[in-house]
Amino acid sequence: MEMSPRSQAGKELCGAVRRLSPQLVNNAAENDRTGVFAAGSVKLLESNGVLASCAPVDQGGSGLDSLFDLTALSAYLAQSDPSLAVATYMHLALSWYFARTWSGLIGERRMIVCSAVAEPGVYPWELRTTAFRSADGWAINGRKVMASISPIATHFYTRLRVESDKGPIIGSVMIPRKTPSIEVIENWEGLGLRGSGSGEVIFRNCHVPWDAVRPRGTWGVRDEGSFEGRVAATAPLLGVSLGIAEAARMTALDYLIRQRADPHGPQTTSIGVGNLLAEIELRIAAARATLKIALTDFDEHLRDSAPRSLSATLGRTLMKECVSAGMIVERAAVEIVDMAMQICGGASFLWSHPLARLARDVKAISFMRPYVPANNWSEFLVKETLGEIT
Amino acid sequence: MEMSPRSQAGKELCGAVRRLSPQLVNNAAENDRTGVFAAGSVKLLESNGVLASCAPVDQGGSGLDSLFDLTALSAYLAQSDPSLAVATYMHLALSWYFARTWSGLIGERRMIVCSAVAEPGVYPWELRTTAFRSADGWAINGRKVMASISPIATHFYTRLRVESDKGPIIGSVMIPRKTPSIEVIENWEGLGLRGSGSGEVIFRNCHVPWDAVRPRGTWGVRDEGSFEGRVAATAPLLGVSLGIAEAARMTALDYLIRQRADPHGPQTTSIGVGNLLAEIELRIAAARATLKIALTDFDEHLRDSAPRSLSATLGRTLMKECVSAGMIVERAAVEIVDMAMQICGGASFLWSHPLARLARDVKAISFMRPYVPANNWSEFLVKETLGEIT
Amino acid sequence: MEMSPRSQAGKELCGAVRRLSPQLVNNAAENDRTGVFAAGSVKLLESNGVLASCAPVDQGGSGLDSLFDLTALSAYLAQSDPSLAVATYMHLALSWYFARTWSGLIGERRMIVCSAVAEPGVYPWELRTTAFRSADGWAINGRKVMASISPIATHFYTRLRVESDKGPIIGSVMIPRKTPSIEVIENWEGLGLRGSGSGEVIFRNCHVPWDAVRPRGTWGVRDEGSFEGRVAATAPLLGVSLGIAEAARMTALDYLIRQRADPHGPQTTSIGVGNLLAEIELRIAAARATLKIALTDFDEHLRDSAPRSLSATLGRTLMKECVSAGMIVERAAVEIVDMAMQICGGASFLWSHPLARLARDVKAISFMRPYVPANNWSEFLVKETLGEIT
Amino acid sequence: MEMSPRSQAGKELCGAVRRLSPQLVNNAAENDRTGVFAAGSVKLLESNGVLASCAPVDQGGSGLDSLFDLTALSAYLAQSDPSLAVATYMHLALSWYFARTWSGLIGERRMIVCSAVAEPGVYPWELRTTAFRSADGWAINGRKVMASISPIATHFYTRLRVESDKGPIIGSVMIPRKTPSIEVIENWEGLGLRGSGSGEVIFRNCHVPWDAVRPRGTWGVRDEGSFEGRVAATAPLLGVSLGIAEAARMTALDYLIRQRADPHGPQTTSIGVGNLLAEIELRIAAARATLKIALTDFDEHLRDSAPRSLSATLGRTLMKECVSAGMIVERAAVEIVDMAMQICGGASFLWSHPLARLARDVKAISFMRPYVPANNWSEFLVKETLGEIT
Repeated sequence: MEMSPRSQAGKELCGAVRRLSPQLVNNAAENDRTGVFAAGSVKLLESNGVLASCAPVDQGGSGLDSLFDLTALSAYLAQSDPSLAVATYMHLALSWYFARTWSGLIGERRMIVCSAVAEPGVYPWELRTTAFRSADGWAINGRKVMASISPIATHFYTRLRVESDKGPIIGSVMIPRKTPSIEVIENWEGLGLRGSGSGEVIFRNCHVPWDAVRPRGTWGVRDEGSFEGRVAATAPLLGVSLGIAEAARMTALDYLIRQRADPHGPQTTSIGVGNLLAEIELRIAAARATLKIALTDFDEHLRDSAPRSLSATLGRTLMKECVSAGMIVERAAVEIVDMAMQICGGASFLWSHPLARLARDVKAISFMRPYVPANNWSEFLVKETLGEIT
Repeated sequence: MEMSPRSQAGKELCGAVRRLSPQLVNNAAENDRTGVFAAGSVKLLESNGVLASCAPVDQGGSGLDSLFDLTALSAYLAQSDPSLAVATYMHLALSWYFARTWSGLIGERRMIVCSAVAEPGVYPWELRTTAFRSADGWAINGRKVMASISPIATHFYTRLRVESDKGPIIGSVMIPRKTPSIEVIENWEGLGLRGSGSGEVIFRNCHVPWDAVRPRGTWGVRDEGSFEGRVAATAPLLGVSLGIAEAARMTALDYLIRQRADPHGPQTTSIGVGNLLAEIELRIAAARATLKIALTDFDEHLRDSAPRSLSATLGRTLMKECVSAGMIVERAAVEIVDMAMQICGGASFLWSHPLARLARDVKAISFMRPYVPANNWSEFLVKETLGEIT
Repeated sequence: MEMSPRSQAGKELCGAVRRLSPQLVNNAAENDRTGVFAAGSVKLLESNGVLASCAPVDQGGSGLDSLFDLTALSAYLAQSDPSLAVATYMHLALSWYFARTWSGLIGERRMIVCSAVAEPGVYPWELRTTAFRSADGWAINGRKVMASISPIATHFYTRLRVESDKGPIIGSVMIPRKTPSIEVIENWEGLGLRGSGSGEVIFRNCHVPWDAVRPRGTWGVRDEGSFEGRVAATAPLLGVSLGIAEAARMTALDYLIRQRADPHGPQTTSIGVGNLLAEIELRIAAARATLKIALTDFDEHLRDSAPRSLSATLGRTLMKECVSAGMIVERAAVEIVDMAMQICGGASFLWSHPLARLARDVKAISFMRPYVPANNWSEFLVKETLGEIT
Repeated sequence: MEMSPRSQAGKELCGAVRRLSPQLVNNAAENDRTGVFAAGSVKLLESNGVLASCAPVDQGGSGLDSLFDLTALSAYLAQSDPSLAVATYMHLALSWYFARTWSGLIGERRMIVCSAVAEPGVYPWELRTTAFRSADGWAINGRKVMASISPIATHFYTRLRVESDKGPIIGSVMIPRKTPSIEVIENWEGLGLRGSGSGEVIFRNCHVPWDAVRPRGTWGVRDEGSFEGRVAATAPLLGVSLGIAEAARMTALDYLIRQRADPHGPQTTSIGVGNLLAEIELRIAAARATLKIALTDFDEHLRDSAPRSLSATLGRTLMKECVSAGMIVERAAVEIVDMAMQICGGASFLWSHPLARLARDVKAISFMRPYVPANNWSEFLVKETLGEIT
């Protein structure tokens, strides 16, 4: 009942990830120990065509056009290495969303996109990175954090404050790494996701041409019209939570099956262990189902529609489903990791145990979904719910 | 994002229930107050063709062949009246399962099936109602409880201990009400589901022909091979839990929307009320998704297959999904009713308030699903889960 | 580890309740069935001196001056009959609080106080019952609801809007039942607490002397200074929640012990039943401890202090503890009743089963504690918590 | 409402810890970063007399004889540094328990006891470390893990398999560090408690005199008679969980109070943040109360009784309370840390944030309490509960 890909392309990509899994798992442990970016694993994905999933077939990609399958792919990646899944999810989401525009590059496997949007303690609609007019284009200055995959990225997707004719607006821009004066600092020191390469990117008077910057709304005003893009960008992240939950569950099951022969080991017939396992099954079932239904709904409305073509109402409805599914899957993942540790006992508290890594990784997702970290997902749900029926 | 029917027949039937809803809701309140069977509502369903849902179109039915839609139908019924939904779910499930055999009668709207299987404190494989050989058939004796819809049933589906040539076996039989010596006692005094007509049925030397009794396994031995039928018989019951949850949610939402104008009323912007509403949304989302996915899976494997044709492994897998979904939806329903009451305040504690009825009705489902009341759903899940992967 | 009384008077009173328990339990079942006020049980308590608990010994009472023991007494009563505990808790709390003033009457067992304060959908500081000046005193008019024990009360404690010289204020008054033009309507139709006699009391131009009305703050303004009295008035109510939890737990334990011999019955060695029982133990332990600590703190500050002598800060601190303890004990009680029902199986869904009554009774307490039903206990806790440390 | 010490000695010791707190907190962060044992902090405690808490006053100690206060002391330590609290709790518990025997040494501040009992994957009654008879005493061989404070210990308290005349028994022994052939390996690599010095201790033919080894029951048989000592040894550990919860709560409160001025920061008036804070308050209240009541009960029965003098029944009752309180406090601590992280947002996911450390530390306690890691606390509670009432 796992979340399995439905398209042929999805099946092949997930199959590739599964085949690479032993290597990815090894790398994950090592990267976590040393706190070093998962460059080797990203290269593996690249050379196996996973990073080109969304590019058209005739351009060297796999033509994956289903968010469902893209999310399943993220879940498969996270089962092996959540750091890797986080490092690549935004590249995948952006390449899905902008497939028509940049797919050539992605398909030729020459493009690895890093989302360098976040700034510390700043709302997305009040970003402080600036684009000022220069002689023949824009000059970009600012500091971005949590820029996963940045050590190896070829392009930086960023959002910033554009000093336009009509005052400050939010703009988006894709900046090639070869642009002079970009500094990537590998200074990520997180509790988890230690292999995700989520350090800083600094732009110092980086120059981009006039048409590289696209308007995305008024600066300082929460953009309520961009739900569609945010849903697409968030969906694979929910797959990461599910993948972590799947990995934790499987670790506990493997342990119990190995323990069977040992009369002293924790037995599934004991009340404590048995109940933990039964509750894991309930949580994983609800998480899988919620994610499957949400992604089916997303595909139904987003798969074949032009970007930014959805009605505001439908955009909000999908966003509500995205926020709800995110909370449900994330809570399940946190609880499943915790219960798996209780099943596996004190050994799972050693740094080298897979669950000791998952317990740290799983906490990250709370801070990456929309409507966090300000914890206003409740407000959003309340508003949307009452809005729906009046 | 509600669980809506997918087939044309399902849409028409659910539409009919929605149209009848005001009348059904009124009846529900009155039946609950007086503790009287919902005969009027059952008649309404009968005359509107709802009880013939699963009969072929050419025999006067609606030809509903999807368990998904049948479960959605139960959920719609439960939104108006859980007693009515419980009274009819087994008739619907049995008519779905046996469509080919008895559909004619059902289609002609002359058959209302009551499941008179349960005996107090007795496992399904150790039933004490007996079938002994008589001169020209079987003589049936025993007492059945929790026989919902019995006051108005035309047929009683029952299971019993058959004294066969090879020793005691479990048998099933459909007994027409006109058979002499059947006594229906309207003595249902439950905490909830007070309109479900769940009293006793007593068979005193009831005679049925030889071929009426079908073998269903050895008496005294848990039948592990009948998962398929039990999944089908349970599915609509999960719809009842969901319908109760939907009704409770809608009651709270209606209340909040009405209260908006009153600055003294509970406001959705308050931490307490806002959080309750947000949590309701998460629970209903998980419950809906879990049920949709489970029913999609059931339909995939059961819709077009002959009865008893599934492999044991697939049967167990579906049963696991059924048990898991049952727990998830039921817990969500219990919590949603409780949170809705907190939102609506003290008024919801008055007997006449819809939530005061739902709070009682919702507790029943715990005792009707498979692997309860002995609370061995955990054991089942544990066994199946470890079995899956070894 | 139960919450047992500590003083000699408390021990004797709780002992008396325990001796009366078989009779009280019988009455509880009967009153719940018929929806009739627990007059017989109240009389039993009266004749055994329980209603005079807080009156001084030399005036015929027991001299109980500990809120801890008073709360334990309420818990003991609720173990036998939550309706009875609710009917009497406000009489007990008021007699504790006002011991010096009216203790004579209470001691002589001629006074049974009914708290007739609540009005439907009205905040306590905006009551609509009025006291207007008449020739030689006040004329009182208004309708009160949820007036537990009203059928048998000798006095009505009420709060109302007093048209004073300086504008409308909130006033309190104790009105003897013999006052002309008081109507007690036995129209309580609650989901639970059906024997609590919580119907309406109507005052129609009831006359009381000038000095009977005491000022309690400005009308329309939330009184933040009366925490002390509200803590005292709420404490025994928390005992009712605990008593319900104790009764539900004991019902489940009795059942399991009786079932032991039956290999088919639910076994405590099963994962499901075992886990339910273990979780019940954790919840009851936390509930008992929380209530014991809270009441120890209340006694420390309230037992020997004159009414209204506490500092506002201390009052708020005690109120925070009271609100927190209320939520903790109430949640535990709701969950324990639910888990006990799951242990006891379908039989507990019959109207006549003790748990079917407790499941209804336990829901009431949510609507009776301070800071409900507007669900603003969260706001209160947040405000107090941040206030504490700044 | 914190758990504050009650005795004068307890107040002074907790006061000392509070004064040292800024230094301890600094050390905690540094030790966690480097994964190095908290030697400096232990020295600070030693020189301030904290390690001699339980030694008599006339021998240079503080004469602390209350388990309540000892547990409060552990909670205070854990508020500053859970690693330090874990490193010292067993020294404190053992010195409390054996105060009469070794108190001289402890009082003179020359004794730091390390509990080197645990062996990987081995039940306490089946230990594999052996004591064989040699010419003039016992020769001890074996490997112990999770030996907190071992880098600096002067004595190792251990349990082992003694080859006695009557077959294998469990024995206990206190081994001075100066004994030849003890190797302490600083190889602790845990997810948390990284400063606790919980590496391995290896005994290679270590010699102790005949009378150093004390019999503690039959080898291979679960010792049901040693509840008293285990309760005493566990109590301070529950304080560690509480201290972690207190620290996490205070971190969230400090953050919110600092954020107040920032209209963009998370506000306590938002549903999400407000609800998290309110729920933290409920959990900390229940945890504090449960621990206070348990420790009050322990002191009542253990404080003035001779070692091993309690009845088996009372021992079991106290153990049940200890196991229950452990689960309640531990669950609360895990949840409070998680909620505090959600309040503090993404910054709390950085390795250097206090909550990122607490989130790891808090998981450890699950594996250190009695009846874990085999997760048989449920079985224990079930057995004791039914045993109580029959």
